[in-house]
Amino acid sequence: MIADPLFTDAVAYFQQLQDRIVAALEQLDGGTFRRDDWTREEPAADGPALGGYGRTRVLDGGRLLERAGVNFSHVHGRFTPQFAATMPGEGLEFMAAGISLVLHPRNPFAPTVHMNYRRLARESGGWFGGGADLTPSYFNRADAQHFHDTYRQACAPFADVVDWQALKAECDRYFFIPHRQEARGIGGIFFDHKHDNPARMFEFVQSAGDAFLPSWLPIAQAHIADPYTDAHRQWQLLRRGRYVEFNLVVDRGTIFGLKTGGRIESILMSLPAEARWAYDVRPEAGSAEAAMQQVLRDGFTPLVPAV
Amino acid sequence: MIADPLFTDAVAYFQQLQDRIVAALEQLDGGTFRRDDWTREEPAADGPALGGYGRTRVLDGGRLLERAGVNFSHVHGRFTPQFAATMPGEGLEFMAAGISLVLHPRNPFAPTVHMNYRRLARESGGWFGGGADLTPSYFNRADAQHFHDTYRQACAPFADVVDWQALKAECDRYFFIPHRQEARGIGGIFFDHKHDNPARMFEFVQSAGDAFLPSWLPIAQAHIADPYTDAHRQWQLLRRGRYVEFNLVVDRGTIFGLKTGGRIESILMSLPAEARWAYDVRPEAGSAEAAMQQVLRDGFTPLVPAV
Repeated sequence: MIADPLFTDAVAYFQQLQDRIVAALEQLDGGTFRRDDWTREEPAADGPALGGYGRTRVLDGGRLLERAGVNFSHVHGRFTPQFAATMPGEGLEFMAAGISLVLHPRNPFAPTVHMNYRRLARESGGWFGGGADLTPSYFNRADAQHFHDTYRQACAPFADVVDWQALKAECDRYFFIPHRQEARGIGGIFFDHKHDNPARMFEFVQSAGDAFLPSWLPIAQAHIADPYTDAHRQWQLLRRGRYVEFNLVVDRGTIFGLKTGGRIESILMSLPAEARWAYDVRPEAGSAEAAMQQVLRDGFTPLVPAV
Repeated sequence: MIADPLFTDAVAYFQQLQDRIVAALEQLDGGTFRRDDWTREEPAADGPALGGYGRTRVLDGGRLLERAGVNFSHVHGRFTPQFAATMPGEGLEFMAAGISLVLHPRNPFAPTVHMNYRRLARESGGWFGGGADLTPSYFNRADAQHFHDTYRQACAPFADVVDWQALKAECDRYFFIPHRQEARGIGGIFFDHKHDNPARMFEFVQSAGDAFLPSWLPIAQAHIADPYTDAHRQWQLLRRGRYVEFNLVVDRGTIFGLKTGGRIESILMSLPAEARWAYDVRPEAGSAEAAMQQVLRDGFTPLVPAV
């Protein structure tokens, strides 16, 4: 039996954050998110037993948001011993709840964004994990700086439990496409297995979760109606091809979901509506496309105010 | 040192087959394939040492062929002991040569096709592997039957080394998307690790390789100018999303290439030019889209003439 005093409050927070974000996105786009409440009890065929419920909110083909998914899920089950051994703590039983979001705006100058926070509990205790990261198709230094500034500020009051620089570095390490030798995007924050000081960590997770709308919405509002050409759209679709490559080849969460019989439609909601591949694309020197590619190869380092 | 008496002849066959197929495809499309001759000698960062050369032939954005790639490669290197242990034979040194092809026609009624034949040699001996399989977006029973008939006939004179029914069953097992519980396409033939009777096997590989144009070209010619609507195109793009999922999540060859530092542009040439994902798509009952989906869930069984 798993006892995790924080769990109920974490579930409530993730659910209200989902509602709050969907409301803001509906206001941005003008469209209405579809809502799918699902439950599952059957054990997965080739993986751990899995049951639970969730609420999938999705907008496919919105006026401004080409594809947007904001998921809440609350599952429980039993890890395989092999999988359990890859994580801290004891026991095969687990329960997990979280919010997970991917937004793919239609406008090539409005960046794709991903966010996910989760509480996972085993018999021996629980931990938080998650983060947020930005994936532009065109590099905009001020936007990238704003995104990082927002999370730096969200981390600042919680220096006793998290170090923003470490979370940023972890994000860069995670969202990297080894076979392309380039980053997926310009980073953000990422953390996992944070089991010390759970009450403070929960406060931090709420600070980071609350930072999502301020981190992304102003950037989206600024660019979601920018004029663009078909050439910009084609480059955006190539970048979305890279997003697909990361999610299907590299992302641990997606691969775990696919291999263990998770709910496919919810797992693959992270994929863009459209993606493109072309042979040996080399952006023209000095172009905006070349600048983006260079940033993804070099990595982006935000400025930090002198103390 | 690897001695494989068949290797030189196999290389010559794969190269002339590449030339022959590219010529036929240029005639079909009216466009000209780009040609990239490449060599590599550097050892891969995280995998086996790899050197060799190849010729990539690619048509991106042809009039009828939206994306077509016909590759020849000849590589040599050293397996990691872990990888070597997954294959028959002894020794870490290997050399491999093969032809590999993926054609994605623009017209939704002209099926995608994949074909690959290769010779792989280790110190203890070599073997052939490969096959061909068809991936329509719309099911056409006569086309599917024609494709299978062609390979059944190509196998028939070689009953001493291959059994068509076994090769067909192996193809169905391999080109399956577990997380979707559906086949990638309607099958074809697939084999690997065929090390007995190499001279006869080489004759069979030539028979199968020669069967490629007769297996696919008549189907393509029949449908490549069929009228179609945007709804047909959208369904084709969704099916291409599944193709991407198979190649990036399931296909052993693609994953091996990505994880061992193979030439990315050649490996990912198998991906379509465009792909699409949408949430929880359910084709209308009785529609052509529903019929295709049903065939992919049930599997396709061609008719075999009574003897």
